[in-house]
Amino acid sequence: MAKDKGQRRPKAETPKGFRDYFGHEVGARKAMLDKIAAVYHRYGFDALETSAVETVEALGKFLPDVDRPNEGVFAWEEDGDWLALRYDLTAPLARVAAQYRNDLPSPYRRYAMGPVWRNEKPGPGRFRQFYQCDADTVGAASVAADAEICAMLSDALEEVGIARGDYVIRVNNRKVLNGVMEVAGILDPADPSRFEAERGIVLRAIDKLDRLGVDGVRALLGEGRKDASGDFTKGAGLGVAQIDKILAFVTVNNSVLGRLSEMMSDATQSGAPGTSALSRALYSVFSEDAEPTKPISTDPQASEIRTKITLQVLSELIEDSTVGMEGVAELEEIAALLEAQGYGPDRIIIDPSVVRGLGYYTGPVFEAELTFEITDEKGRPRQFGSVAGGGRYDDLVKRFTGQAVPATGVSIGVDRLLAALAAKGRGTAEAQGPVVVTVMDRTRMAEYMGMVSTLRVAGIRAEMYLGNPKNFGNQLKYADKRQSPVAIIQGEDEAARGVVQVKDLILGAKLAQEASLEEWKAQPAQMEVPLAELVQTVRAIMGRHG
Amino acid sequence: MAKDKGQRRPKAETPKGFRDYFGHEVGARKAMLDKIAAVYHRYGFDALETSAVETVEALGKFLPDVDRPNEGVFAWEEDGDWLALRYDLTAPLARVAAQYRNDLPSPYRRYAMGPVWRNEKPGPGRFRQFYQCDADTVGAASVAADAEICAMLSDALEEVGIARGDYVIRVNNRKVLNGVMEVAGILDPADPSRFEAERGIVLRAIDKLDRLGVDGVRALLGEGRKDASGDFTKGAGLGVAQIDKILAFVTVNNSVLGRLSEMMSDATQSGAPGTSALSRALYSVFSEDAEPTKPISTDPQASEIRTKITLQVLSELIEDSTVGMEGVAELEEIAALLEAQGYGPDRIIIDPSVVRGLGYYTGPVFEAELTFEITDEKGRPRQFGSVAGGGRYDDLVKRFTGQAVPATGVSIGVDRLLAALAAKGRGTAEAQGPVVVTVMDRTRMAEYMGMVSTLRVAGIRAEMYLGNPKNFGNQLKYADKRQSPVAIIQGEDEAARGVVQVKDLILGAKLAQEASLEEWKAQPAQMEVPLAELVQTVRAIMGRHG
Repeated sequence: MAKDKGQRRPKAETPKGFRDYFGHEVGARKAMLDKIAAVYHRYGFDALETSAVETVEALGKFLPDVDRPNEGVFAWEEDGDWLALRYDLTAPLARVAAQYRNDLPSPYRRYAMGPVWRNEKPGPGRFRQFYQCDADTVGAASVAADAEICAMLSDALEEVGIARGDYVIRVNNRKVLNGVMEVAGILDPADPSRFEAERGIVLRAIDKLDRLGVDGVRALLGEGRKDASGDFTKGAGLGVAQIDKILAFVTVNNSVLGRLSEMMSDATQSGAPGTSALSRALYSVFSEDAEPTKPISTDPQASEIRTKITLQVLSELIEDSTVGMEGVAELEEIAALLEAQGYGPDRIIIDPSVVRGLGYYTGPVFEAELTFEITDEKGRPRQFGSVAGGGRYDDLVKRFTGQAVPATGVSIGVDRLLAALAAKGRGTAEAQGPVVVTVMDRTRMAEYMGMVSTLRVAGIRAEMYLGNPKNFGNQLKYADKRQSPVAIIQGEDEAARGVVQVKDLILGAKLAQEASLEEWKAQPAQMEVPLAELVQTVRAIMGRHG
Repeated sequence: MAKDKGQRRPKAETPKGFRDYFGHEVGARKAMLDKIAAVYHRYGFDALETSAVETVEALGKFLPDVDRPNEGVFAWEEDGDWLALRYDLTAPLARVAAQYRNDLPSPYRRYAMGPVWRNEKPGPGRFRQFYQCDADTVGAASVAADAEICAMLSDALEEVGIARGDYVIRVNNRKVLNGVMEVAGILDPADPSRFEAERGIVLRAIDKLDRLGVDGVRALLGEGRKDASGDFTKGAGLGVAQIDKILAFVTVNNSVLGRLSEMMSDATQSGAPGTSALSRALYSVFSEDAEPTKPISTDPQASEIRTKITLQVLSELIEDSTVGMEGVAELEEIAALLEAQGYGPDRIIIDPSVVRGLGYYTGPVFEAELTFEITDEKGRPRQFGSVAGGGRYDDLVKRFTGQAVPATGVSIGVDRLLAALAAKGRGTAEAQGPVVVTVMDRTRMAEYMGMVSTLRVAGIRAEMYLGNPKNFGNQLKYADKRQSPVAIIQGEDEAARGVVQVKDLILGAKLAQEASLEEWKAQPAQMEVPLAELVQTVRAIMGRHG
């Protein structure tokens, strides 16, 4: 065969690391984001949609000095400037807050939902374009703004279908962490750039507590650690006294539980066991919450005591650090504000173990974790984990204007939250296909379209089969592929008598699989009705299947 | 002052030709697109969201052989391949239809809504990122698919708020145009590539009929035309007989009106004037429709006659062209299908003057035009013009697979339609700001947040002022900027008495502008109520202002 003028055909493929979303996938995400947007709106936040393209300069990446622009973003040159696709929704917000600072209300409260792009090596389940869903308050120094965002995140999670008890929002403060660094001698308030490398290693080590345990973290804080495969990770090189201070912080939740246990024992000894309000409250901490980082008892007294003890233990650890004690005071204020709004520890808890990686946080940090178990690819049960996080970042706008602007915000991992809803069976139901009016007689297409029109006007999703009608089997196969609930059939004979055949495809599929002869007879999957009864018959069948 | 380590600050600017969308702009577009999506869904179309990034190869641009990739798209190189942002939603659909051809139902009916990017010189009101909203049926050869898309477009326009009579959808067929080219001797069916340049000039000339009139078009078909500024545009160089044939086509709507006028005169002469059904029907064409391309009488007989005469006049013009007569037959079928669904000429008309620029159309083409007048920047009335268009393009998927796949679709100009709704005052109402609970006493923030929480639980959009509360005037200015309907105030004194001040900001602003002293007294803009009546008081005020 002669080649098509030597031109090769283009490949029909998405670029590596990109994907398409079909029908129900688009609908499920939209339904979830619409619900979240409604919550954000109720909280007084306004929508913002920035352009997908920013200058590399505004994004804060270094200008590339070679042909290949910076890794991490998709970038291209234009008249000597570099443009790039945004890699998150926070950098564009900082740019907007600076650009429109004279016009925007202050504080400026906005939410944003949309795709972001990362020029990273794609992997299984790792894409280079994905959705983010952020809410931020810019220009509010008060931690009331942080508390509000935690409450809003809680409402949003429940609104989309994560039940109370299936999640917990954990709140910490970067200042507390800095206080720990200070008392451990690896943060010098007079010279913040000293010990930067050590602090980086310490942060990464703390973040691995879940996986490596206390001994693993201890090794990483000291000389280093050899993993199971024999690979050696260099440690922070701290001394024993330094390490002890950091580990005391890392295990602070255990100290809190120990302290509570002592209090309970005191309380029960001083009266009849389990009768005083205090001992009952304390008991409820232990009866409902074996693990320190799970959501705990809804008993308000129990939660108040627990928060108080947590802050007390923290204070004792870092009382020599000014910034650390500032952090404790902020956590105390956040806890009080949340209590006043009824957000107890069954939803939001103060938890000093939350670190969060991003370097730019300067105050409160928070993280929403789903606490139910799912089964991983290998069939093992595991906790679902984090679906959202955020915190205070007071220096982002300063890059543009030179003036510090306090800001705090949260980002929801859209794909992870969708996966969680699917795992809980709480995604929106699989979308139903349209009623398909089949084409028995090609010369009668106008009449078939008339039927379709009647159904649509009645609000029923419907279409006429638009492929080649020759093979009737293909028409029913098409209806099947579309997950159509009903097919309509009208041949010459039916047309002459003014009737149509209405076929219940859901029932038909069920009967075909499992029905006895009696059932076939009792409830036929296909019936003949006058054309005038088309809409009511279709409605009745669709009602039958909910 | 010492410079910040010599680093200059980044500019807080969107790249040239890009813009941001705030609050109400995002909401109005979303509301419109949601309504359109609901119509598309009811018609049996499924959502599709393709990645923003495609290979340049798949987009169908030529691979660049220099550093600077093709003008027209934003592109960058990656490991020897060129990637680019999509410039429309049709090219990605063709790629998807080819890539998933074994899995997708056939016909495949999808809608897509999202941003596209054009690397063009930006100008006033011309942006390099904008929204498109498309619906296409891939794999349906029948013109029933085209008719359906016209009906769906009509429903979508009415659903978003364009009243019947304020728009018309005009339908033509590229085959009819080709038939005219053939009888005018500038299309050789045996060698379609002959006369390509001439046809290009002819198409562009026809498209300028509105602006240049018949004589202007005649000049462009012949030797050429000198415009008012003295610039000369070279013509197609056709002979007089050729030009006459093309002009007969261009003015076919006038011929139709002439023919109808003759018929009316015949009909009225053969009976009592204006009494026969035919003459009444014909009369209604003229009484309601002076211009040939406006939507005409809803009298079904009148529309049927007009369509019939249009097709007859066309047939006489191009009866020597096989492809032309095929086009006429297709238009006839579309008209019949639309009639059967009740879409008369008050919504959709057959109009041979529709050309549409895109080279890839192969059959029916359609265009939605808004027929109401708006006032342009210079205060002159003008018709709003086109807001959507589309047609049949049977060769796009073939690029990938080598097999022709029939396809047809429509694209709505999202920004133009939004502008039309705004011009008609039919956009969604300006979004209302939140109720603002002010901060009179910094130590009572927890209580204020409690009030906010109570309002939110009652479904009322509310927030506490999160800026620096020192200057109370700033708090009210903030509420004003947010277009808040109500402000809540509670100082030490009110708190002690268990009451709050509720300030009606809308009434307050009105009174400040225009009220007499009596009105001030009769309906105070601020009232004191018990805290327990907060929600009902706020509701009453918001209800007052609808």
